Parts: sequence; C-alpha cells; structure tokens
Amino acid sequence: MSKGLFITFEGGECSGKTSVIATLCEILKEKGIPFISTREPGGIKIGEEIRKIILDVHNTAMTPETEALLYAASRMQHLKEKILPALEEGKLVICDRFLDSSIAYQGFARNLGMEAILKINYFAQKHLPDHTIFIDVKPEEALKRLKNREKIDRLDLEEMSFHHKVYEGYLHAIQRNPDRYLIVDGERSLEEVTQECVFAVLNWWEGR
Amino acid sequence: MSKGLFITFEGGECSGKTSVIATLCEILKEKGIPFISTREPGGIKIGEEIRKIILDVHNTAMTPETEALLYAASRMQHLKEKILPALEEGKLVICDRFLDSSIAYQGFARNLGMEAILKINYFAQKHLPDHTIFIDVKPEEALKRLKNREKIDRLDLEEMSFHHKVYEGYLHAIQRNPDRYLIVDGERSLEEVTQECVFAVLNWWEGR
Repeated sequence: MSKGLFITFEGGECSGKTSVIATLCEILKEKGIPFISTREPGGIKIGEEIRKIILDVHNTAMTPETEALLYAASRMQHLKEKILPALEEGKLVICDRFLDSSIAYQGFARNLGMEAILKINYFAQKHLPDHTIFIDVKPEEALKRLKNREKIDRLDLEEMSFHHKVYEGYLHAIQRNPDRYLIVDGERSLEEVTQECVFAVLNWWEGR
Repeated sequence: MSKGLFITFEGGECSGKTSVIATLCEILKEKGIPFISTREPGGIKIGEEIRKIILDVHNTAMTPETEALLYAASRMQHLKEKILPALEEGKLVICDRFLDSSIAYQGFARNLGMEAILKINYFAQKHLPDHTIFIDVKPEEALKRLKNREKIDRLDLEEMSFHHKVYEGYLHAIQRNPDRYLIVDGERSLEEVTQECVFAVLNWWEGR
C-alpha cells in the first residue's frame, strides 16, 4: 500500500504491548531507522478528543454502536493525518492497536459482529497493516495483571466474560487473515517477549 | 416504528428551522401535547461532546470521512438514549436535523456519496422519522442571511459552492423518499413559514 512499513500491535488488557513498544522504539532510534510510534485511537488532536469521550467513566450510557463509530472515526483521522503521510515518506509506522481491536472489542465482546465493524471501517477505503503482532496473554492471566494496575478506566471495569470474548474475537480475526499475524506468547518474561517482537520487526524492515 | 410520532426539520444554514421550532414548541406546550424537542447532533451529554469536536474551528484537519462517522456516532447515541425512549412513551419528538443532514452535508457537499452515508448510519439498525419538514431556502438567500449572523462556526466558513451542493443533496434525498417530506417555502415571512409548519405538525399528531 505504500513505500514504508505499517506494523500494528494487538492484544487484550495488560498484554504488555506498551512496554514492548517502548523498548522497540529505543532500539529503532539507536539503529537510525526512520519510524514513528503511535497508538489507537489517539496520537492526533482530533483522535485524542474522541478517545476522551470513549474512555470517560461518566459516559456509561454509551451504546456499543456509538462506541464502534467513535473508534472508526478516530481511526480514520489517525490514518489520514498521521499514518499514511509517514508511510508515504518511507517510514516504519508502529501502531499500538488498530482495526483488529475493534473487531475483538466491539465486534465480539460487544456483540456487534465482525461484518458490522468492517462495514463502518471500510465505508470509504480499505487500509490494512502490513504485519500485526498479537501478544497472546490468556484472559485469566490478564485479569491477574489488571488487579495490580493503579489507574482504571471504563473499559477495565468489565467482567471476566468480556475479556474472554475479546480474546475469542482476536482468534477469529487471526483465523480470517492468518498471514498478516505473528502470534507471540506473552506469558513469558517481558524481556523474552520484547526480544521476539524486536527481532520480527527488524526482519520485516530489512526484507521490505 | 413506535407509539409516538417522530418529526424532523431539515434545511441549509439560516433556513429558520430554530425559530420555527421555538414557536412550535410554545404552541405544543399550550395545547398540552406530550413532546420533546431536540437537535442533531447533540441534546445529550455524549452527543454534545461529539458536536464540540465537529464544530471546533481549530479542527481544520478533520477529513470528510471522520466528520461523517462522528455525526453517525452522535446520531446513534441521540436516537437510543433520547428519541426512542420518548417515542416508546408515546411522545411527539421534534428533532432539528437528522439523517438527511448527513446525506446533504457529508454525502453530497463533501462528496462521500449517499450510499456511504446510509452504510455507516444503518450498519446496526434502520430508523427513519415519520415525517420530515424541509424548509426550502435557496443557497443565494441563505448566504445573504448568513452574512447578518454574528457567531460563525467552522461549517459556516464554507464556499458558496458548498451551500449549493448541500441544497442539491437535500433535493436528491427528497426525490428518493418523497412521501416522508413536506417542502415548505422558507423565503416568505417567518410568521407564514411557522404557521404552515405548525399546521402540518398538529395535523399529523391528530391523525397518528
């Protein structure tokens, strides 16, 4: 789709994505690889404003349909304003969550269905990452980690069954499009997980 | 679709919708008709927050696709949280702008197409007003009126061609579904326009 390389990270709550990406970025910087690191649904002014509405603990009346449309709006702006221009400049784009998160969270955990999510995300054009790293942490382990977190937002307040559905949603998304995914066992030490991810990203970049 | 009656008002900038609705509401109150009056895209907390993002004059980087998705998100929340419950209670719902505004503004004036707009607005369920009053003010007259307004928001800063496209968009939406519309000549005095609208609404309410 472009001259650069577009890599997304996916996984449930507390899968360690953020820590992995932080170390990855340090290494990319050391190696002088031109890159940007960004996250779903924010990273740009309009996206961050939308994110605030979605994550506001007072917005409990929000319907699943509204949430799905807001994520799609934020993603669209993020893509056009930041991701596509960086790819056009030949950069490596690292993105923390993208379309697959909406399939898992709104499509499966909120029961809207995968097709509905694809419909609102692809209503204008279709853009997919070149590669997606799924950090595989089972829901039981994720919940253990979640309890040790200090800051809790609205999405963290969900039931165990919700986290199970998110996990199943990811497995469905992967089954549908297996070539795009690298599944990384996220229940090992952070060092091992990070090492595998960094190795894969550097490999893809060299072979692009 | 429900026990109540759902009536929307549509038209370009400065068509006089807001003034007409204000007088209509006074009359409905006097007559003891159970009603609510609301507007697109706000009227509820989440909708108003989304509206702020859309109308923020600093958000000039917003893509037409993002704008369309934000309107759809706001509309969905508005519908489920406020309009449908009121209709369920048997009320008359008066709404200032609804789906047809997105067809005219994002579908035509922003060139996304009517089908794309319907796709994101109907991705879960389909809800249409029982009747829609289109206050017909030609773009040239609208622009004259616009220049006399004090507060200008981002959408008002558009070119003349934009207002023409909005107008054409409305005509297409009406052609597609003529039975739902009452077209009211909005270039007469405000009293005459209001009188015609009030007469129609009371008629529909009596005959529901």
